[in-house]
Amino acid sequence: MDFALRIDTAITKAIRQGQASPSPAKLASALHYTVTPGGARIRPSILMAVAAACGDRTPALSDAAAAALELMHCASLVHDDLPCFDDADTRRGKPSVHKAFGEPLAVLAGDSLIIMAFEVLAKAALHDPEQAAKLIGILSNRSGMPNGICAGQGWESEDDVDLRAYHRAKTGALFMAATQMGAVAAGEDAEPWEELGARIGEAFQVADDLRDALYDEDTLGKPVGQDDLHGRPNAVTEFGIQGAIAHMREILTGAIASIPKCPGEEMLANLVRAQAEVLTPIKWRAGQQPNDTPNG
Amino acid sequence: MDFALRIDTAITKAIRQGQASPSPAKLASALHYTVTPGGARIRPSILMAVAAACGDRTPALSDAAAAALELMHCASLVHDDLPCFDDADTRRGKPSVHKAFGEPLAVLAGDSLIIMAFEVLAKAALHDPEQAAKLIGILSNRSGMPNGICAGQGWESEDDVDLRAYHRAKTGALFMAATQMGAVAAGEDAEPWEELGARIGEAFQVADDLRDALYDEDTLGKPVGQDDLHGRPNAVTEFGIQGAIAHMREILTGAIASIPKCPGEEMLANLVRAQAEVLTPIKWRAGQQPNDTPNG
Repeated sequence: MDFALRIDTAITKAIRQGQASPSPAKLASALHYTVTPGGARIRPSILMAVAAACGDRTPALSDAAAAALELMHCASLVHDDLPCFDDADTRRGKPSVHKAFGEPLAVLAGDSLIIMAFEVLAKAALHDPEQAAKLIGILSNRSGMPNGICAGQGWESEDDVDLRAYHRAKTGALFMAATQMGAVAAGEDAEPWEELGARIGEAFQVADDLRDALYDEDTLGKPVGQDDLHGRPNAVTEFGIQGAIAHMREILTGAIASIPKCPGEEMLANLVRAQAEVLTPIKWRAGQQPNDTPNG
Repeated sequence: MDFALRIDTAITKAIRQGQASPSPAKLASALHYTVTPGGARIRPSILMAVAAACGDRTPALSDAAAAALELMHCASLVHDDLPCFDDADTRRGKPSVHKAFGEPLAVLAGDSLIIMAFEVLAKAALHDPEQAAKLIGILSNRSGMPNGICAGQGWESEDDVDLRAYHRAKTGALFMAATQMGAVAAGEDAEPWEELGARIGEAFQVADDLRDALYDEDTLGKPVGQDDLHGRPNAVTEFGIQGAIAHMREILTGAIASIPKCPGEEMLANLVRAQAEVLTPIKWRAGQQPNDTPNG
């Protein structure tokens, strides 16, 4: 079974269990709405790739870890879109959850998905308590305070921002969770896999800055220019477009160099190389503005 | 060490770890603000009492379980107070979290505390992975969808409410978590302890209806009449004040009868009896209105 199908199956199973009867129908619908159709599922795909590179000894645990990570990511998107944060009307090309279901159900959908992420791992723990407990430890550490995505979002309320801590928490945390959880789900140590996740996270941060600067709202499926709007630091503002692209390619070269020894080392390196191509469409490298060819 | 001190120590330890440097200072403060000064800490106290009644074989695990449960409860209060739900300006006699720190930090404080609850248990899992995994399973089940406090809050957005499911999820869930987590932390099965938690939850629901009907805002520390305001079902409206008191005493008699065989069975029964006294002040039973003697 390919990664995408395994991830989708695991997420669908979790959401269905969360909708078991009796349950409040609107909140149950909001949970399904939030996770479908999925986005690129980048974080759980990286998790699966690392697990595979490490031998994927307990596939059910990898599936649970991937689903948990994506549920947490989806939860963060729902809450980030709320009026008190980004006030985003759209997400992934459709109305954001609070626009579709109202604010109370959006808050609750986010809360429920956070909890569901841990419930999925708790269920997997019946068979592999030690590894599952480690996975829960990593996911909580990379999601909460002071190191996780909550901390990342929290930095945006500060006047005096620790930029390194901000980026590591806001964008890096769930990528570090991805590589580390993938390794742990396959029975390996988490620690050697932190750097790969951190570097992929940095690359995605730069890619996000590029997309935010270059794409229009229709293509992106969410309001553009949000970072600039809120005065957040931005690689494009700092290095210019070609400079940001070069910077991202350096980061990914470092990512490849950081891959720990494992059976699937070469496969992972190729995957990161392929990702670099995806993240820097050839037209950007030619200096062409994507706005000129919106269907390109 | 007494229960209250153990609970407080465990919560303080978790919050301090969540505030480790570098972390966004305002969110770190909001976490501390949310859990201090503590309320009655009723749920973790019940958890500790059940663990003690079962022999409290692994006190560190009981401490972690109690802290996790209270952190989850505090998270739910922060989110319930938000403008899109109860829009409460005060909580426990001081400004609610969103009034003190703004809405973004209130949403993030709630999210962070939910995650912290699981992180505390994940740390305890290093020593007792199997029991800790069970505790994580119970806490997630009693907090999320479809059985937990999120579901309970979600029912309030429905036109057609399953009243039994609503009350079990909204008020009962964390009391069932309390008795079941206490038992599991002491190495016992969870299942026989569900009924005790469910009945204590029902009693507190009735007590809450009574307080809401009888006390003024200064005494209660939160806006009164919220349930009535939102048209939720209410034991006082249904049975009258004396009828509701009698109903609550019946429920607690049932609670005592449901206590599973264990070394501390009698201690627990006395505790429930004492709780019944606390929940029904003698002046209520005399038919006197507490509003007449606000300092009584």
